[in-house]
Amino acid sequence: MSHFDDETAVVPLGENRYSAVLSDRWNIGDNPNGGYLVSIALQAMRDLGPHRDPLTVTTHYLRPGTPGTPTEIRTELIRSGRTLTTGRATMIQDGKERIEVIAAFGTLDGGASDDRSLTIPPPAMPPPEECPIRSGLEQGVELSILDRLEIRIHPEQAAAGLASRAEVSGWIRFADGRMPDALSLPLFADAYPPSLFGLFGYVGWVPTVELTVHVRRRPAPGWLIGRFATSDLSEGRMVEDGQLWDETGALVAQSRQLALLLS
Amino acid sequence: MSHFDDETAVVPLGENRYSAVLSDRWNIGDNPNGGYLVSIALQAMRDLGPHRDPLTVTTHYLRPGTPGTPTEIRTELIRSGRTLTTGRATMIQDGKERIEVIAAFGTLDGGASDDRSLTIPPPAMPPPEECPIRSGLEQGVELSILDRLEIRIHPEQAAAGLASRAEVSGWIRFADGRMPDALSLPLFADAYPPSLFGLFGYVGWVPTVELTVHVRRRPAPGWLIGRFATSDLSEGRMVEDGQLWDETGALVAQSRQLALLLS
Repeated sequence: MSHFDDETAVVPLGENRYSAVLSDRWNIGDNPNGGYLVSIALQAMRDLGPHRDPLTVTTHYLRPGTPGTPTEIRTELIRSGRTLTTGRATMIQDGKERIEVIAAFGTLDGGASDDRSLTIPPPAMPPPEECPIRSGLEQGVELSILDRLEIRIHPEQAAAGLASRAEVSGWIRFADGRMPDALSLPLFADAYPPSLFGLFGYVGWVPTVELTVHVRRRPAPGWLIGRFATSDLSEGRMVEDGQLWDETGALVAQSRQLALLLS
Repeated sequence: MSHFDDETAVVPLGENRYSAVLSDRWNIGDNPNGGYLVSIALQAMRDLGPHRDPLTVTTHYLRPGTPGTPTEIRTELIRSGRTLTTGRATMIQDGKERIEVIAAFGTLDGGASDDRSLTIPPPAMPPPEECPIRSGLEQGVELSILDRLEIRIHPEQAAAGLASRAEVSGWIRFADGRMPDALSLPLFADAYPPSLFGLFGYVGWVPTVELTVHVRRRPAPGWLIGRFATSDLSEGRMVEDGQLWDETGALVAQSRQLALLLS
């Protein structure tokens, strides 16, 4: 069993309630990465219906999670349809909501094929071995998540504060060799350095208010390429867009988040 | 009182329950436009806390609404914070959920100013009087919403099926002279023809699964410019991105939706 499967596992308590244990191996500093929390919620939400692939996942980050603290996930079915199962989940620690998730699940690669298609090509990227590994210590903050994820940043974007635009791109995969799947794409979409680093240099913690991930395709085995960019920052609130591609160049997910630039 | 304020009004029933009457003047064919339904839910959700501006609004469209049918909205506070109020709402008719909304409210134009900003400029657009009015009959479907909204499409995009990419842009405003505000931006973000029309010609009803709107700024009085484009369509599911600017050229909202292209 992989670290990801082991450390996102949930134990059913009955009546749409689950318990989970938050590992401290997915941390940014003292708190678990937001995408890691979403992955746990999605594991529980998969029980809501027959559809296993998250197609659209929106998460509101209410309070940081705490590793090692008893964690409860409550799920609720909103609608069970023929092609979609829609539900929500709440993650609670110490009686306080940490995240709230609403998601629709369906079946990827299961629809009728259609001649009409459009896609976004991946950016040019040197091979992984020519891209520097994202450092486990950033702005003086320890990133234990890099025990679990190998992230290699485009060499021209590795220096903070030197870019002409707020963009970061690079390779990503599980460090233990687990292959990517639809369920893990929301995690990968929330694991890169903030795209503002390139333009403004290190800016501290950039808390996410809300993150929506659209899973577009089941990824092929291997590395993923991610690109994240911000072109809309006003009064300390920014919208960051992202895409993920698999090793064959297929677009597998899009993401958008509203985040805060603390002054 | 404007048609928009009148026809999105909710009557409190106590205990976070509200009633509303769906007008048939915001229809696309037989069903109310999705952004109109969201506007009614937002009116009820504003009671959840002191923050009046929707900053991020995610809606899952579960079933079409029906004009004239008794309508109930149930709201729930998820978190009340110093700068954000987060809540959800469910719209129910005949015992069945029509839409589910999760939103965070805050205060626009109220934050500390920050030198660091980025924005997306509006597209070049001929003046409104040189842009053809969106027809009230499209693909044989009557659009009564055009009694309420004046939409003028970029003249080079007015012919379906002739564009080189899936994009639509144009001017929009309330037909009765009501000025735009933060609350009405989710409606304006869901009122343009599907961007696929330009590329593929009329494609029938393109049902939205999920729509997220980020309100970025309170709009100045006057017209808005909207631009909506799709560059990701696969297996009958598409992601459409949009932006809205006010008459001064300020970016006031961004939107993204997952929608279905029915074969």
